Amino acid sequence: MQLGENILTHKIQHKSEDFFKYEASAKPMQDDNPDDGFVVTPWNIQGEIDYDRLIQKFGTQKMTDSLHSRITRIAGEDHFMLRRGIFFSHRDMDRILDEYEDKGRKFFLYTGRGPSGHTHIGHLVPWVFAKWLQDRFGVKMYFQLTDDEKFYAKSGLSMEETRGFALENALDFIALGFKPDNTKIIIDTRDISTLYPIAARVAKQLNFSNTKAVFGFTGETNLGMIFYTSLQSAPCFLEDAPVLIPLGVDQDPHFRLTRDVAPKIGRPKPALLHNIMIPALEGTGGKMSASSQNGTIYTTDAPNQVKKKINKYAFSGGQPDIEQHRRLGGNPDIDVSYQYLRIFFEPDDSKLRAIHDDYRSGRMLTGELKAILIERINEFLHEHQARREKARDHLEDFLLDGDTR
Amino acid sequence: MQLGENILTHKIQHKSEDFFKYEASAKPMQDDNPDDGFVVTPWNIQGEIDYDRLIQKFGTQKMTDSLHSRITRIAGEDHFMLRRGIFFSHRDMDRILDEYEDKGRKFFLYTGRGPSGHTHIGHLVPWVFAKWLQDRFGVKMYFQLTDDEKFYAKSGLSMEETRGFALENALDFIALGFKPDNTKIIIDTRDISTLYPIAARVAKQLNFSNTKAVFGFTGETNLGMIFYTSLQSAPCFLEDAPVLIPLGVDQDPHFRLTRDVAPKIGRPKPALLHNIMIPALEGTGGKMSASSQNGTIYTTDAPNQVKKKINKYAFSGGQPDIEQHRRLGGNPDIDVSYQYLRIFFEPDDSKLRAIHDDYRSGRMLTGELKAILIERINEFLHEHQARREKARDHLEDFLLDGDTR
Repeated sequence: MQLGENILTHKIQHKSEDFFKYEASAKPMQDDNPDDGFVVTPWNIQGEIDYDRLIQKFGTQKMTDSLHSRITRIAGEDHFMLRRGIFFSHRDMDRILDEYEDKGRKFFLYTGRGPSGHTHIGHLVPWVFAKWLQDRFGVKMYFQLTDDEKFYAKSGLSMEETRGFALENALDFIALGFKPDNTKIIIDTRDISTLYPIAARVAKQLNFSNTKAVFGFTGETNLGMIFYTSLQSAPCFLEDAPVLIPLGVDQDPHFRLTRDVAPKIGRPKPALLHNIMIPALEGTGGKMSASSQNGTIYTTDAPNQVKKKINKYAFSGGQPDIEQHRRLGGNPDIDVSYQYLRIFFEPDDSKLRAIHDDYRSGRMLTGELKAILIERINEFLHEHQARREKARDHLEDFLLDGDTR
Repeated sequence: MQLGENILTHKIQHKSEDFFKYEASAKPMQDDNPDDGFVVTPWNIQGEIDYDRLIQKFGTQKMTDSLHSRITRIAGEDHFMLRRGIFFSHRDMDRILDEYEDKGRKFFLYTGRGPSGHTHIGHLVPWVFAKWLQDRFGVKMYFQLTDDEKFYAKSGLSMEETRGFALENALDFIALGFKPDNTKIIIDTRDISTLYPIAARVAKQLNFSNTKAVFGFTGETNLGMIFYTSLQSAPCFLEDAPVLIPLGVDQDPHFRLTRDVAPKIGRPKPALLHNIMIPALEGTGGKMSASSQNGTIYTTDAPNQVKKKINKYAFSGGQPDIEQHRRLGGNPDIDVSYQYLRIFFEPDDSKLRAIHDDYRSGRMLTGELKAILIERINEFLHEHQARREKARDHLEDFLLDGDTR
């Protein structure tokens, strides 16, 4: 598919081509209902997310065709995650591109991960996209592993455990092809001497009521959690340059606070590119969580584990029996295996479209669809796990302060 | 005065000898009034403090004659600050001494300072006493300079300023004779990599309601202030040993929280020795504050500044004119110059008693009393300022992490 065609056809796509987009319209809008039937916070995802409604609630900007087109033009190529609406929303991406194009001012990238367990495949979405942005725009990258946050948020996790997961997660990040000359990994408890003085300037500008309004914090919220948002803000101000943050939309509330604070400390507001939540194996409501073993494919899973999990747990859009399936067809919009292919594992639009149409028509059975996904995931993990092991030897080169403590 | 005599005569002292004690009984008790007419928090001192009432409010233990006697016996000498009730209250000092005597278990000392300005003479009280404890008990000492706290607490102070004051304040501490082999100085923003992982364990055990109850925090309190108490707790857990904290009683609320948390993280509760607030030059209500220029004698003041400040601002217990003063006598209990001699600058009881009696009787005029104080302070500062300048060369030896950043 040619870039120009895609943009041009975008607006005249009929319903059957909407599989490239998230299914926001599948759910009725609930404008008059303060309870939208879903919750999205950095620590809690509930219900089936209506992304158009979420854009309204969060006050972000929708990724438009013209913005998509502009990114593609500057990058010199299109990215399927933009084409398919995986990155569906943003804040100030236009400004980032204005400064890049008009003033030749480079931004830097920043994203991160809360290391509550091993990396799962959903985490890779913004990282892979960030790598593409880094390569196409020639910019620096900071990757933050918030071991303190996960220690604060999970009663059962020790700091040794979250630090351990941080180091493991870092391997997955490095395995995606980042290079230490333009990429630094931050581990909060390890690099706190760099982060804290910046976080303190942020913390002085935020009060408890702000966190209550944005995160719903209460009197029971622990002091670490209350302060923590300042530390997630800190990397935004590591360099005297605009920052662009590709990340899951659930993390947006943190940066709403950062954006309020930025002008007060004389710095530019961070720009954001939001990706949708990656559904758990059991279904499209909520996001894949590292704490639900069955609902999660880890990057460390062996091929037979992947096969077993997909076959056993992946929510199916198929019919109760083969006869009905052949007759009525499957529903790819709610089929998790199909969604994983759409979001990550089948970048080729024509191949994805064929799978979509075959499944929708009933020509492809759920088992066949799952087999395709299992093969794709295991192909990916075979490579990834090899790179991941090699990354152990280079971890130190990536760490912000240059030595392991 | 012999130790034995002092202890024996303690209970039969008549009113005129009460000048060795703070004047708690001078103010009527207000048991039935929830508003005691004074406020004592780490960031706010208001009104004339009733120390007996404060002991009740804070739930601390009064320094008894028998505890004083026990400290004196183990130390091998008495200290005038104990004898005169400057250290009037404690928490668990008995336990510290039990472990020291019965189990031969050494404690370590910890105290600190919020570097919002230059050191004033009131700050030296717990430091001088801590030095005496260190020498007599042969124990280690940690001294924390909370540059982050003062940045959070004072809207007009930058972090560069509080860090600068921290380094200046450290010189005053070192000038008192501490040695780097058993004394370490912590500067929060500089030593945060050591403090933060400990503070995080504390922070996970405390919630916003706890800080609201203890400090009166509100929705308007900034995130740094809310988290900060965890960092003031952190040095308590630097060593696997009991900790004793000599400090101004206004800092007690922080360690009430620390003491609640300690068993939850498997550590002993810190023990405390509380000193009274050192009155401002203008009067005995409240404490000397580094932010009120006129009410404060700084350790960096020149002799003529000391003279001018005492003569101009030191609140007098004298009568309106010489004739009345000769006839009615002065009131040393409210005379700030006399109180400074009692608290710090005249350790010799017989000399202090002579001054007290002369002033009380009217034989000594306010101007003469002030002249004595001015001489004592300037003698002290002459020595102190010389040692303070020498300390610049040794500062690095004291810093926790061993190098200046």
